[in-house]
Amino acid sequence: MRMALGVSYNGQGYNGWQSQLSGNTVQDKLEAALGRFATHAVSTLCAGRTDSGVHGLMQVVHFDTHLRRPNASWVRGTNTFLPPDIAVQWAQQVPDSFHARASATARRYAYVLLQSPVRPSVESGRVGWVHMPLNGDAMRQAASILLGEHDFTSFRASACQAKTPVKTIKRIEITDSRAAAPHPELGWSPCYWRFEFEANAFLHHMIRNIMGCLIAVGSDKQPVSWMQSVLNARSRDAAAPTFSPDGLYFLGPVYDAEWKLPESTPPFAWLP
Amino acid sequence: MRMALGVSYNGQGYNGWQSQLSGNTVQDKLEAALGRFATHAVSTLCAGRTDSGVHGLMQVVHFDTHLRRPNASWVRGTNTFLPPDIAVQWAQQVPDSFHARASATARRYAYVLLQSPVRPSVESGRVGWVHMPLNGDAMRQAASILLGEHDFTSFRASACQAKTPVKTIKRIEITDSRAAAPHPELGWSPCYWRFEFEANAFLHHMIRNIMGCLIAVGSDKQPVSWMQSVLNARSRDAAAPTFSPDGLYFLGPVYDAEWKLPESTPPFAWLP
Repeated sequence: MRMALGVSYNGQGYNGWQSQLSGNTVQDKLEAALGRFATHAVSTLCAGRTDSGVHGLMQVVHFDTHLRRPNASWVRGTNTFLPPDIAVQWAQQVPDSFHARASATARRYAYVLLQSPVRPSVESGRVGWVHMPLNGDAMRQAASILLGEHDFTSFRASACQAKTPVKTIKRIEITDSRAAAPHPELGWSPCYWRFEFEANAFLHHMIRNIMGCLIAVGSDKQPVSWMQSVLNARSRDAAAPTFSPDGLYFLGPVYDAEWKLPESTPPFAWLP
Repeated sequence: MRMALGVSYNGQGYNGWQSQLSGNTVQDKLEAALGRFATHAVSTLCAGRTDSGVHGLMQVVHFDTHLRRPNASWVRGTNTFLPPDIAVQWAQQVPDSFHARASATARRYAYVLLQSPVRPSVESGRVGWVHMPLNGDAMRQAASILLGEHDFTSFRASACQAKTPVKTIKRIEITDSRAAAPHPELGWSPCYWRFEFEANAFLHHMIRNIMGCLIAVGSDKQPVSWMQSVLNARSRDAAAPTFSPDGLYFLGPVYDAEWKLPESTPPFAWLP
């Protein structure tokens, strides 16, 4: 039978999702824990592989097993064997036709960015950082250029294995947590920016490359119209450097309601 | 001349604030960095020593130096020599009569608690955890018993060095981030609780001991009235076990406006 799991993890200590010989990836840790609980080798397939340092709030995987246990036992039993920064949130039996990657109709990511003269500390490794104030309106205008179906070659890592660079971005929302009063010495307020992305699928490094370009526009290094020329160029050389993985969170895949999987990531409402 | 600094840190990797022979404390790291920037040995005194694993959002320290540098140089220069999970937020010259501990009229702490059937993962080491739903009204009633001036011996660690166990709690606020809809399988929603404490001063382990008692009441292991009997007992044996340091954040000291120090912790509005 086929099982699906929702998995959350802090990516700071791992070499990304995808299994490696080093064994220090989230997939390696998860499969080792599932193997100990199921007492047979388990191989998982995920909805969206995350890079080194990228976090997962609700990664979804599927795997096949002959072991029948209550859902809650899969959660509790597997978590016993997982390190403290990875946890299974839910487990559910699914039809054999369910496929964590192929059944996903969309993926959602968030990027959390600290805007402050001082680098991150308490939240080091979990937020990106800019030391100058950003122009939200300019970034929102530049982001709107990317909405819809486009060839995203300019935002694609050379190692990307996707069959096509044509993807559809459904939504980019940019909000900030700016406090009311500006800082007395700075003349502006330190704040967190939150960028939320939804697309049918993303290319390798696509969000981090888009973030680099949005920040170039937001910090007035490039005009809004530059985003259109980057998109049109279909060349990685046209875009800004790949931005840090630190603030990137995979919020999770979207599936049709027919699969009856949990939808939300309720414990993570705290994300700025 | 005397300088004051605001310092934030993630306490997960350190043996608390107070300098130790191991050198692995926040004070050790800060004094080493200040020493490298100032090119003379610097010894600091803080507003509130935090335990191993406890975080600081705006710790305040003072120290004496003959070095004259702009405030921004103290911040940037010292941060260059600090590890990524500790950062100076501001620096300001203060009168010699200022004393980070003695001048503080109050201290504020927050405790962040995950209520979920699944243990923390992304936020491991930065939130406490309970696996069953808590009764907020019962906890608020029990907390109100502690408000005002009392002998807090029942909530005091045996190692506590305070001159008197009599302290004044000015405020305990308990809020939760509960999502609207209950989880389909649980019948209740995972959420974060936030407990905010303000007192003229706190005894060693006082908040963690109060947290243990509030959770005992919130989870219906003890009635609200039990909190009064714990307080009256003036014995550590009467209270619940000391709760985990993971979710405890020193929000910072309160000073009279005459010192003209920055008041807020603006970059940390994200705390759940």
